[in-house]
Amino acid sequence: MNFSKVAILGPGLLGSSIALALRRLENPDLQIALWARRTEAVAEAQSKKIADIVSAHLEPVMHDADLVIFCVPIGSMAMLAEKIAPLISRETLVTDVGSVKSSVVASLGPIFQNRARFIGSHPMAGSEQTGLSAARADLFQNAMCMITPDDAAEENAVVELRDFWEALGCRVRVLSPREHDEIVALVSHLPHLLAATLVNTAHGAKPESLGFCGNGFRDTTRIASGPPAMWTEIFEQNREPLQNSVNAMIEKLRDVATLLNSGDSRAVEAFLAAAKTERDCLKTQFQ
Amino acid sequence: MNFSKVAILGPGLLGSSIALALRRLENPDLQIALWARRTEAVAEAQSKKIADIVSAHLEPVMHDADLVIFCVPIGSMAMLAEKIAPLISRETLVTDVGSVKSSVVASLGPIFQNRARFIGSHPMAGSEQTGLSAARADLFQNAMCMITPDDAAEENAVVELRDFWEALGCRVRVLSPREHDEIVALVSHLPHLLAATLVNTAHGAKPESLGFCGNGFRDTTRIASGPPAMWTEIFEQNREPLQNSVNAMIEKLRDVATLLNSGDSRAVEAFLAAAKTERDCLKTQFQ
Repeated sequence: MNFSKVAILGPGLLGSSIALALRRLENPDLQIALWARRTEAVAEAQSKKIADIVSAHLEPVMHDADLVIFCVPIGSMAMLAEKIAPLISRETLVTDVGSVKSSVVASLGPIFQNRARFIGSHPMAGSEQTGLSAARADLFQNAMCMITPDDAAEENAVVELRDFWEALGCRVRVLSPREHDEIVALVSHLPHLLAATLVNTAHGAKPESLGFCGNGFRDTTRIASGPPAMWTEIFEQNREPLQNSVNAMIEKLRDVATLLNSGDSRAVEAFLAAAKTERDCLKTQFQ
Repeated sequence: MNFSKVAILGPGLLGSSIALALRRLENPDLQIALWARRTEAVAEAQSKKIADIVSAHLEPVMHDADLVIFCVPIGSMAMLAEKIAPLISRETLVTDVGSVKSSVVASLGPIFQNRARFIGSHPMAGSEQTGLSAARADLFQNAMCMITPDDAAEENAVVELRDFWEALGCRVRVLSPREHDEIVALVSHLPHLLAATLVNTAHGAKPESLGFCGNGFRDTTRIASGPPAMWTEIFEQNREPLQNSVNAMIEKLRDVATLLNSGDSRAVEAFLAAAKTERDCLKTQFQ
């Protein structure tokens, strides 16, 4: 990794964890700067010494930064981008950690055109926990990080961004914004929606059933504790791919309900065995 | 706990873990006996010394047992019950660990009528792992165990069975077989079916998406690695309550898909917030 000053915009779980992970690299030539909107967040970040510069003002954070990372909610990115664009140089690499990429790239790409080098990132290292207090230096260890250059992106910038996330411990994959969004709709947004819908279904059908949950329910619904406002925004920004995923899920559920009704044990077992085979394959991925 | 000999029928995850948990009680007056159908399983259980008596013959295992626990697949229980009924006394307490209770109680109740005291149990301590090699002495620590006496059950027998599971570390709740089945359809069987269906949906829609899974997908689908034959049997034995749960889930998913489509952010956020509130309440339950 070849950056001398990293500016992190937003002191949430991801922003703070990036700061902690960079600090752990113990690179004396690397300056870590963190911007937070609220003065209380600035004070907290300062008292925990998670960055060399912490400020509610953009100028000291952005000054001479050669990597800028947006770690704010997707809906706040464009306005912030307009503010920082005059503060950076043509060579500055700019990225974000948003969970949706087509809409972010479409929104930030034009703002930074000819003013910086922008490429979207999505480190899949979230948690149902939020904020600086949940931050961890090892949050990115072995996490998948997708980077999504558009057609305008320079080859060099892709390499530099890949090196950055790998230095934090990520396994990096490069793909298009659209491809990214279709994939996360299936493996991230749909699971979140299912977890929430499962909790609401059980509670709606029989409220007392929630008093009888075992480990299966615990794990399948853990992510339903995630922040509702953030997930609402993610769902809205990825509406069409998510809609396709939900429809595919409903169709598959209807199919399996028909199988269960038919009493065709072999077909039910084949359905479960196919899922087990695929899921077993993932185990190495999670280690 | 006031038993002097516990006969465990079946050396799988639950049967073996019960043996290990009983051994850990270090009660010199308690004999632990284990029956296994296959001689290989007998040899493995003997070499690991998980019980005082291990045999593929029922007689030495059943002789003088005052508690008998069926830990075999639900579909094998009735045939085994017919075999052991002549080997036990009117005072013997008999239970099982099946995940479904109405069908088990309806099947075993009449077999043991006037020949033993039968009450169903369901310790919710399964795992996606199976067999003796996955057994753990602490599997039941803090696990929920439901016991489901029918109208014929004696009050004393309920107390003795409750004491037994509590000695193994379970939190015990008493409810009717039907109530049990409706509850587990919602909080155990539906989550399993969803986990398998989610894996099959993602794989079916975009096979490469499984290469991009994060912690959310990992946790929501962990139980899809469970044994397909066992779960097929569970689903079949609990068909009607499961069908109701699946239908309720499909309806709720359709509702939320409509919300997403409508662009009504407040309603989407309220849906997610309701799920978060209920899920957050469960956290203490899992500690």
